[in-house]
Amino acid sequence: MARVAAAVDKQFDLLLSVPDDPRAELFEAMRHSAIGGGKRLRPLLVMATARLFNVNENCAIRAATAVEALHVYSLIHDDLPCMDDDAMRRGKPTTHVAFGESQAVLAGDALHALAFELLADEQTHSDPFVRSEMVACLARAAGPSGMAGGQMMDLVAETTTFDLQTVTRLQQLKTGALIAACVEIGAILGHVAIEGRKGLRGYAHDLGLAFQIADDILDVEGDEELAGKALHKDQQAGKQTFLSLMGLERAREQAQMLVNQAKSHLSIYGEEADVLRAIAEFTVHRDR
Amino acid sequence: MARVAAAVDKQFDLLLSVPDDPRAELFEAMRHSAIGGGKRLRPLLVMATARLFNVNENCAIRAATAVEALHVYSLIHDDLPCMDDDAMRRGKPTTHVAFGESQAVLAGDALHALAFELLADEQTHSDPFVRSEMVACLARAAGPSGMAGGQMMDLVAETTTFDLQTVTRLQQLKTGALIAACVEIGAILGHVAIEGRKGLRGYAHDLGLAFQIADDILDVEGDEELAGKALHKDQQAGKQTFLSLMGLERAREQAQMLVNQAKSHLSIYGEEADVLRAIAEFTVHRDR
Repeated sequence: MARVAAAVDKQFDLLLSVPDDPRAELFEAMRHSAIGGGKRLRPLLVMATARLFNVNENCAIRAATAVEALHVYSLIHDDLPCMDDDAMRRGKPTTHVAFGESQAVLAGDALHALAFELLADEQTHSDPFVRSEMVACLARAAGPSGMAGGQMMDLVAETTTFDLQTVTRLQQLKTGALIAACVEIGAILGHVAIEGRKGLRGYAHDLGLAFQIADDILDVEGDEELAGKALHKDQQAGKQTFLSLMGLERAREQAQMLVNQAKSHLSIYGEEADVLRAIAEFTVHRDR
Repeated sequence: MARVAAAVDKQFDLLLSVPDDPRAELFEAMRHSAIGGGKRLRPLLVMATARLFNVNENCAIRAATAVEALHVYSLIHDDLPCMDDDAMRRGKPTTHVAFGESQAVLAGDALHALAFELLADEQTHSDPFVRSEMVACLARAAGPSGMAGGQMMDLVAETTTFDLQTVTRLQQLKTGALIAACVEIGAILGHVAIEGRKGLRGYAHDLGLAFQIADDILDVEGDEELAGKALHKDQQAGKQTFLSLMGLERAREQAQMLVNQAKSHLSIYGEEADVLRAIAEFTVHRDR
């Protein structure tokens, strides 16, 4: 995890060198949000999946950085005053607090574009089919039937009482789609055809849900210092979560059940999938 | 122009059918901003360039719609209260006025992703190289060294007095990069190698500048009713423009000179480039 985090930081540092012109502040805002901090769970998922298929590490790290760029953009926009209005993220002031609201909108937008620029770049992969498949996969995960759609449902959740099925759908879009895209992109880099991705898809699906249940538990039980952000937000906003709908005990059981199920999808792989197995366990046993 | 506008509207209508779930409002907001209105200059540029190389019309219209989706996203975000704070766009209330600020941020984000999803889709072009080249081209035009970078310079322009060279650079990034991308994407669809795009690049460069000078003139002399948006904004914000730096007469001359220069880059083409020539003339003779 630390190795992937350092490698992602290095990529962002190279990609976002601050120009000596009036765009400097945009690059500073992008660096502030993209470099340092975060679990880098998504890049790790890309790397760990790519490793199953012996993908070149330089290719994988660039694709992993693209996914993280997309994730960081979504965090910046989610934190905006008109969205969740958060002041802290990854232990630092949020981008709009540090740089201003308009700069934060632009830094998010620029990282969004950068993600696709990276995936479509020849340096990331020499095969254009791999590049366009990765772009298609990430774009679907980001768009109205992915992250943006989940975020919209999250806005609606502030004024509507969702049932468990709708909360599950919300989270599948809001966080599950991107987690699934990480694993898909690792498989695309490994030239695995759609038929061959079934197990990995099952793994990603269960992992995404387990991750979100653990997040809901952390929102109630976690330490703000460790989390690096404000907690107890869902309760305050009156949103239904896995926790509010299932209760703490059942939520914990459900999360562990999903982790076991996620790992069972990896049974066709040997030791080479141990990192993916460890990620699944980490997902529910983390403290941030 | 009307034919392309109708075709783009039809594409958006198909792509953005409103789901019967809590994401409905997101799709409504996307439709509000994407369907109806606008000159559709950018899609027209894609179509007119693609036509030079006898590109299949269905491919071209999908790529043209992707470019327009990116353009519409940028308009939504530019209009936000924290950016230019505009209430009218294309003769309609801006997205945040009609749907709320958070919905507008998300509708922009979702259209941003949709643009890349469309370009990377097999239905847009069967050749993955064409797809990934189009994505790379559009992503560069959107990112920190394109539109987002130009938008950042525009923010800085509110508090700094830029000279003509810096205003030119600002506009090349803010509007020129995407206009150039339209022509490039038309050429990519036509399998034209980079060496063969020199004339088209020159055309797009000059067209982009002429377009912006004309826009600056319209901001001062135009009719708000026809423009469908608030004018005289640059003056109020104290921003330097081509007009404030060159004066009206020189600005007009310069715009026409650029149009002539743009057309001269097309000399290697025959009648098949007449639409591109007409677009160049239209750019400086339009009333909106």
